[in-house]
Amino acid sequence: MALIVKKFGGSSVATPEKIRAVASRVLNEQKTGDKTIVVVSAMGDTTDDLVTLAKEITGTIDQIYNREMDMLLTTGEQVSIALLAMAFQKLGHPAVSFTGSQAGIATNEIHCKAKIIGIDPVKVFNELEAGKIVVVAGFQGLTDKGEITTLGRGGSDTTAVALAAVLKADHCEIYTDVDGIYSTDPRMVPSARRMKEITYNEMLEMARLGAGVMHPRSVELGKHYGIPIHVRSTFVQEPGTFIREEYTMEEKEFVIRGVTHDTNVAKIAILGVPDIPGIAYKIFSVLANSNIDVDMIVQSIRSSEKNIIDMVFTIAKSDVSQAKVIMDQLGKKMEFNGILIEENVAKVSVVGAGMLGNPGIAATTFGALAEAGINIGVISTSEISISCLIQEDKVKEAVNAIHARFFPK
Amino acid sequence: MALIVKKFGGSSVATPEKIRAVASRVLNEQKTGDKTIVVVSAMGDTTDDLVTLAKEITGTIDQIYNREMDMLLTTGEQVSIALLAMAFQKLGHPAVSFTGSQAGIATNEIHCKAKIIGIDPVKVFNELEAGKIVVVAGFQGLTDKGEITTLGRGGSDTTAVALAAVLKADHCEIYTDVDGIYSTDPRMVPSARRMKEITYNEMLEMARLGAGVMHPRSVELGKHYGIPIHVRSTFVQEPGTFIREEYTMEEKEFVIRGVTHDTNVAKIAILGVPDIPGIAYKIFSVLANSNIDVDMIVQSIRSSEKNIIDMVFTIAKSDVSQAKVIMDQLGKKMEFNGILIEENVAKVSVVGAGMLGNPGIAATTFGALAEAGINIGVISTSEISISCLIQEDKVKEAVNAIHARFFPK
Repeated sequence: MALIVKKFGGSSVATPEKIRAVASRVLNEQKTGDKTIVVVSAMGDTTDDLVTLAKEITGTIDQIYNREMDMLLTTGEQVSIALLAMAFQKLGHPAVSFTGSQAGIATNEIHCKAKIIGIDPVKVFNELEAGKIVVVAGFQGLTDKGEITTLGRGGSDTTAVALAAVLKADHCEIYTDVDGIYSTDPRMVPSARRMKEITYNEMLEMARLGAGVMHPRSVELGKHYGIPIHVRSTFVQEPGTFIREEYTMEEKEFVIRGVTHDTNVAKIAILGVPDIPGIAYKIFSVLANSNIDVDMIVQSIRSSEKNIIDMVFTIAKSDVSQAKVIMDQLGKKMEFNGILIEENVAKVSVVGAGMLGNPGIAATTFGALAEAGINIGVISTSEISISCLIQEDKVKEAVNAIHARFFPK
Repeated sequence: MALIVKKFGGSSVATPEKIRAVASRVLNEQKTGDKTIVVVSAMGDTTDDLVTLAKEITGTIDQIYNREMDMLLTTGEQVSIALLAMAFQKLGHPAVSFTGSQAGIATNEIHCKAKIIGIDPVKVFNELEAGKIVVVAGFQGLTDKGEITTLGRGGSDTTAVALAAVLKADHCEIYTDVDGIYSTDPRMVPSARRMKEITYNEMLEMARLGAGVMHPRSVELGKHYGIPIHVRSTFVQEPGTFIREEYTMEEKEFVIRGVTHDTNVAKIAILGVPDIPGIAYKIFSVLANSNIDVDMIVQSIRSSEKNIIDMVFTIAKSDVSQAKVIMDQLGKKMEFNGILIEENVAKVSVVGAGMLGNPGIAATTFGALAEAGINIGVISTSEISISCLIQEDKVKEAVNAIHARFFPK
């Protein structure tokens, strides 16, 4: 007897046939006495179709429309939950669907990227107790003023893990179109290995560094509430990857857990910055005020000139044009020598809690890149990762070279 | 300065272009200080498309799915309200959309044909006071247990009139694809006249007797709360027909207001019924218990046999098969001589409050039919209508003949 939250994404419920298949699978997996909550996203391309409709009204989508976009987009999941509940009923199992609001999911008031601030699970709980499968709309909630909100990126996973947390579920299963978490992107490295287990911290670091399967948000929530997350395929039966606090097995054959890459990176170098206290604060606070995230930062001292430094950092490619305006303004005030922007860059990273006790990881990584003839621009490290900035067109080569070192065939 | 509720049906908001046109029209008609609530239905064929999706899950739609059907179908209006609110905003006018639930529309718990039991208009009122156009989803509400319901046939009109009533609106405008209420079906009688005004009672009687433009439900609500209803075209600017308690003008040139027809009629004759007290009660109570509405009833006495009568009545064609089963069962118990069912029948009616003081109306009606060589099967009358059962294939001829008498060219 277990309480399990299962989340199915849009591709898993894209057609009535697929919805019926999801219902069959859930019923087949349910053991006597099990209680099941199913969280679903909107069917297939529904959300895109709704956005297209909105654009035909508004032209470009501006954030002044955010409230109405939430009103519009939440219909997508509402259609899915109704159809999935019907599919369970058609198969003879009692089921009931709930919108985010009905499931008690309370959010703050930031439309289009609301955060869950609490869940009142009494209705969900009562229907589970009554023996029903409860189907909940992912990605959505309600403010205390009764406004409908959406949770933004990774929203449906977040709904699932949050429900699992508040209902003290045994675990949360995320069904997706890949069959687990891989040691690197299998489209790029055919020998990528599927992992049986990964820790929350490793998964968070891999997600932060470019691994796309899970959004960091839901992993953080799982970590905070200690909910094991099982990432697995909608289309095959076998287990995928468990994300949890610690390995349950001594699965430590590999000191690193994954090799990730991120091409949404640009390098900015500010040349000839006066080396005075607070200068870094000045540069990075104006960027932060414009919501531009800065990632790798290197401050280099010029040996030839005293009191002058160069500052190199990376941001998302999509923030480059805005950052350029800000840096140009600051440059006029502070008399920089120049600003160089390089967009043909990418970041490759190795992630693994095991690297703490293995000082050779960095050397192995750099060695793999050197052997492949790839220059490293900037290096940054965290407790469980090492990242290298390289040329964008070398990404595939770099990932393969590093992966081959840490995961020998 | 006025408070006006405007309701646009599905064909009026079938595409993004039409939604933009609705927004423009509403803004053009709004005078300084006016407060406007717009009630909308689902876009074009959305509801049918959703029903098709459901059928792909469930096969035939059974009432066990009613709750989930409501969950599903209410998304249709939610899409419309979001897009229409965006269209107002795009045109520079503040607007906000509300689901039935957010608009405070409380219903009973009968899914798929819920009745409005109250409206808490505080959110709508506050947004109107703040200068916004309030866009409300028609056809839907919420039970006190937080369950989403739909109002069934005529639901969006009912939402509009109910909001007008609770907010004490000056009037309620129903925009549709015809430009008002006609003296008869213009598709059948080219010389049909559009009426400037009609009373609630006349409209109710016409709707009951087959006129399709307004559902009786919303007219009854308008009558009860004294809300004038203006039925007009979405696609032309000129006024349509006002439905109100009394004529504002002495528009009494015609003693009847309309000629209606209804082909969803079948005639059932029960032959040789024992003429004992309570026999009519027995027959019609079993039909009522199965929710079969009986319309015209005639009890005829046979001159040749004592204590034996024939009972003739009409029901909807769609109820025939169910009624047959019930009557056969009853026939075995009560020893009827036989049951005759005739489906090739239709009802034509004349409606008009003026007929009370004009005893010649019935004679004129029968005369028109006689002259056209049409037999009358059953006759029934109310205070403001006369109905004749005729052969179904004579309907067009009958309506034209009667209309020509009362509305001479």
